[in-house]
Amino acid sequence: MGMRIGQGFDSHAFKPGVPLVIGGLKIEHTEGLAGHSDGDVLLHAITDALLGAVSAGDIGTFFPPSDPRWKGADSSVFLETALEEVATAGYRIVNIDTVLVLMRPKIVPIAGEMRQRVADLLGVKPGDVGIKAKTPEGLNQDGVAVAYATVLLES
Amino acid sequence: MGMRIGQGFDSHAFKPGVPLVIGGLKIEHTEGLAGHSDGDVLLHAITDALLGAVSAGDIGTFFPPSDPRWKGADSSVFLETALEEVATAGYRIVNIDTVLVLMRPKIVPIAGEMRQRVADLLGVKPGDVGIKAKTPEGLNQDGVAVAYATVLLES
Amino acid sequence: MGMRIGQGFDSHAFKPGVPLVIGGLKIEHTEGLAGHSDGDVLLHAITDALLGAVSAGDIGTFFPPSDPRWKGADSSVFLETALEEVATAGYRIVNIDTVLVLMRPKIVPIAGEMRQRVADLLGVKPGDVGIKAKTPEGLNQDGVAVAYATVLLES
Ligand SMILES: [Mg+2]
Ligand SMILES: [Mg+2]
Ligand SMILES: [Mg+2]
Repeated sequence: MGMRIGQGFDSHAFKPGVPLVIGGLKIEHTEGLAGHSDGDVLLHAITDALLGAVSAGDIGTFFPPSDPRWKGADSSVFLETALEEVATAGYRIVNIDTVLVLMRPKIVPIAGEMRQRVADLLGVKPGDVGIKAKTPEGLNQDGVAVAYATVLLES
Repeated sequence: MGMRIGQGFDSHAFKPGVPLVIGGLKIEHTEGLAGHSDGDVLLHAITDALLGAVSAGDIGTFFPPSDPRWKGADSSVFLETALEEVATAGYRIVNIDTVLVLMRPKIVPIAGEMRQRVADLLGVKPGDVGIKAKTPEGLNQDGVAVAYATVLLES
Repeated sequence: MGMRIGQGFDSHAFKPGVPLVIGGLKIEHTEGLAGHSDGDVLLHAITDALLGAVSAGDIGTFFPPSDPRWKGADSSVFLETALEEVATAGYRIVNIDTVLVLMRPKIVPIAGEMRQRVADLLGVKPGDVGIKAKTPEGLNQDGVAVAYATVLLES
């Protein structure tokens, strides 16, 4: 049995007039995340963690932001590709942990639902997904959502 | 044997007139870290890494900052809860690594003592704890302490 | 068999008139990274991840920026020391994953070459190194390069 580790990072600025989607979950909020795709900062970080764990490039290698095909794209499409790369390399997910850093909305009330949604998209149990959140204390980035993801794979 | 990975992030702004506590260590310094509890940015990141590794929520799930009980709280209480969650899930710590990003005070001279203190609080050997520090070059966050933690568990 | 996890973080500001070196690769660009050494933000993060995984201090413990010996130093020297610490502790690299957060230059076109260079410096296969990049959306840090590294070791 072999194991592999991967990590991902992403950030997107909040922007009025667009829907907010985090972890594949549509969230009722006054603003959404700017981005060429649906701006799902959490799925992007997870996608990159999976790709990095099997040394398969990054989200920008597969889905260049310059490509009009990915305008407004559902980010679960990106995740699907990363899962295929992981499977092709002969690995499967042991567990994944994440942190969202954002001023609002509050994540605690929706963390359970987000965990279930991310687990469904990854094809793992909710107990193998960690969803955590922090406010960006002192960082002067209240208008941004940042996501970190780390993943452990085994063959 | 099963393994799990977890990660944590935290930030707190420096503030005059409060004691500085990092990694459970009282540090002689002109400022401390603002926060509802004692502001121990490192123990908060470690607590979240442990909780995330066993998919047990985050520090805010267990200890809402709105709850007056945790005002000025010793953050080792938060860590204790995370360790119980890890034990209940049937896991133990293999090793933990951390990074502090802060302009001052210098961490190198106290890193050994901090490592011992964190190891004691976690119930592991000092050799299973990494304490590292960086200054926030170019990031315009000299008045803030940021902490990252990553943890490997086994059953 | 035992496993260990480590993580590293680094940041350096861009500065005109110095060569740009990332991941041991000299990159054609209008600016380089400020720093006492060659400013190689990626090798510094990897060096710290390796040192942290075996609880051997950090880059600043071994190479204080105050020491004139390391002025303009090739950062592969730092990495060499970390690899020695890992070997002495009885471990070897399973895989390593990294993220660069920087506005420019574009990393995708040079990611393959950078992966090969980092793998050579680490003495591992390119397939055991992940190189990923993001632009710092909304973070107001376009003049800075940030690097994250995570490493999995086994004995
Ligand atoms: Mg993104
Ligand atoms: Mg905190
Ligand atoms: Mg550096």
